[in-house]
Amino acid sequence: MNEAVRFTLEHEDPRTRARAGRLATPHGEVPTPLFMPVGTQAAVKTVHPDLLAATGAGIVLANTYHLLLQPGPAVVKRCGGLHGFMGWSGPILTDSGGFQVFSLPGRTIEEGGVRFSYEKGGEPVFLTPEDSIRTQNDLGADIIMAFDECIPYPADHGYAARSVDRTLRWAERCAAAHARPADQALFGIVQGSVYPDLRERCARALAAMDLPGYAVGGVSVGEGHELMKRAVELSEPFLPRDKVRYLMGVGKPEDILEAIERGMDLFDCIIPTKYARGGTLFTWTGKLRIHKKQYRKDRYPVDTGCRCPTCARFSRAYLHHLFAVDEPLGKTLASVHNIHFYLALVGRARDAIRAGKFSEFKESFYRDYRGRSIRPGDASAATPGSRWKKQKSK
Amino acid sequence: MNEAVRFTLEHEDPRTRARAGRLATPHGEVPTPLFMPVGTQAAVKTVHPDLLAATGAGIVLANTYHLLLQPGPAVVKRCGGLHGFMGWSGPILTDSGGFQVFSLPGRTIEEGGVRFSYEKGGEPVFLTPEDSIRTQNDLGADIIMAFDECIPYPADHGYAARSVDRTLRWAERCAAAHARPADQALFGIVQGSVYPDLRERCARALAAMDLPGYAVGGVSVGEGHELMKRAVELSEPFLPRDKVRYLMGVGKPEDILEAIERGMDLFDCIIPTKYARGGTLFTWTGKLRIHKKQYRKDRYPVDTGCRCPTCARFSRAYLHHLFAVDEPLGKTLASVHNIHFYLALVGRARDAIRAGKFSEFKESFYRDYRGRSIRPGDASAATPGSRWKKQKSK
Repeated sequence: MNEAVRFTLEHEDPRTRARAGRLATPHGEVPTPLFMPVGTQAAVKTVHPDLLAATGAGIVLANTYHLLLQPGPAVVKRCGGLHGFMGWSGPILTDSGGFQVFSLPGRTIEEGGVRFSYEKGGEPVFLTPEDSIRTQNDLGADIIMAFDECIPYPADHGYAARSVDRTLRWAERCAAAHARPADQALFGIVQGSVYPDLRERCARALAAMDLPGYAVGGVSVGEGHELMKRAVELSEPFLPRDKVRYLMGVGKPEDILEAIERGMDLFDCIIPTKYARGGTLFTWTGKLRIHKKQYRKDRYPVDTGCRCPTCARFSRAYLHHLFAVDEPLGKTLASVHNIHFYLALVGRARDAIRAGKFSEFKESFYRDYRGRSIRPGDASAATPGSRWKKQKSK
Repeated sequence: MNEAVRFTLEHEDPRTRARAGRLATPHGEVPTPLFMPVGTQAAVKTVHPDLLAATGAGIVLANTYHLLLQPGPAVVKRCGGLHGFMGWSGPILTDSGGFQVFSLPGRTIEEGGVRFSYEKGGEPVFLTPEDSIRTQNDLGADIIMAFDECIPYPADHGYAARSVDRTLRWAERCAAAHARPADQALFGIVQGSVYPDLRERCARALAAMDLPGYAVGGVSVGEGHELMKRAVELSEPFLPRDKVRYLMGVGKPEDILEAIERGMDLFDCIIPTKYARGGTLFTWTGKLRIHKKQYRKDRYPVDTGCRCPTCARFSRAYLHHLFAVDEPLGKTLASVHNIHFYLALVGRARDAIRAGKFSEFKESFYRDYRGRSIRPGDASAATPGSRWKKQKSK
């Protein structure tokens, strides 16, 4: 079968389910595990593509829901697809729009598709799996996602079961509607909430479709770190070993390491860029709030061990200044650093897997990363989400 | 005399006073005429230094008043001066703070200096010429400016005369206070409002000080295009031919060409970057408002004749989209384009001067540039300021 993407599994960690591989796409090959920065509206916020490339970014993600609304798929197609439109010559992945649509208030789900109104303007829309795929065909990303029902957490077993069935029927419709299988890889999405039987059924049914890649969905919907890990553990064993696996919308550094350990290869999340714009920077010894007075005169780079374009050239004092006077460049420099940090994190994880030392790497990372920000025995270490929220609301 | 900057006059236009030259600074040599992008708070708004370099920018300007307030000269000095602090390895020029201070409400002028309160916080400050120079010595720019009194327009002759005397006394104090003449060039500033005798007296007195460069100030204070030209014409004949001449805070493309024709070499203005952030792009055939619906599907670059990093890669449709969804990258791409346009404008002027065809170039530029936006006989062609304002308030 002439597939748009080809995954090569290079190493499997003997003691965990962590894997290292390579994913070849029509716009280049990338190493896995890999983090994909989010360019929701066909732009990674505040980051020029040249700078994005300088972070080492491989695949960039864009959101179909947003692009459907503005500028519309016809404009993107006319401008050479997303690659031409946003000036990114590397691989791109688009989601199906499902995640956004299902979180809209007042949306109704029918067998045919989803009825909703746009947040801005309120225009009523009926979006079908076929529409999502047609739109993604026009957007032209290397990897496109099936239109699934992403249910919230918690959901009862009965509803989750009916939803999995619909997601599977929709996946078949997506595959049938897909017009560009030769240069766009359609990935299926495993749903099933936290129910072992549903996750297994969904994963097995999708695997039987022999798609070029698979995602674990239904996470990052408020379930928390522990249940996210559980959703992965319940889905992963039933996914083909020789296909790439993408954990959608996850997450914090700890989430990503735990998911790598559980056999996931691809990740996306707005956290590094969103936190950056708020002045929170990731370092190997924990997070750093650049607004703090202590950085006002600090000549050191954000992270002395970092090789990103920001740390190579700018001091904490300069970033502190830019945030103090609300200069937009501050957000750019912070975003570049955080994206690089996430890429370096998965890069080091990959090196560790190849060296057969993933667990050691993970422990060592936690030791340094949490050393500063979490006290021994702090329960929040298990649910880092709450920690970040607490910090944000200060 | 071992001066920080060295100006080499290469060509003088036989029919106008236009000149082409080279200015050697401790951070590299730049061609003149030259436009200097403004990085008020030690950053050109929304533009990473790598992108700024890609526009072809030579000298960058920063504002002493803003940096005095935040982060303060001590922090900048500690971080390697402005070059190290803002990551710009090319030449930098700082103004004296005078322009900002004199426009503050409630400031009082004494022989010693100016008493004012900061806009934010209201902290009372007494700023002397010595303070300004000490601050600029700490900031460490290649070119620093004398602390002058920049009076508004109109001003009566009596006041303007007393002000010129004070500006000259302050210039002497600045020169005496200057601690780094070997690697920072102190430029004097010609004031005198629109009065021939005062402009001449001020220019002659400053010329007698044998400073490494001179500026024409007291413009961009509401006097309009015609009086700006007059201020230059009244000052320029008394400035030494072998020193570089800087027209402060000017201006629109037409202003700059007219000032080049009248013997000015350096220019700075927030217009290209400020207009860019508002979605107004400069092209060789006039200005372009990227918000307009007509650009929604437009696959062409902003200016088909432009070689800037933005036009090389992005369509009008993409920029329109970024502005439509308020993506910060839109401002970045537009700023890069506009800065490049200004640099290309002075670059073409320079080429024309060297070829002995400056007047032909100017006429040809106006023909193309005004062809689209101004009807024949439109009086506003003589005062482009009003034209831009009219367009902005639409």
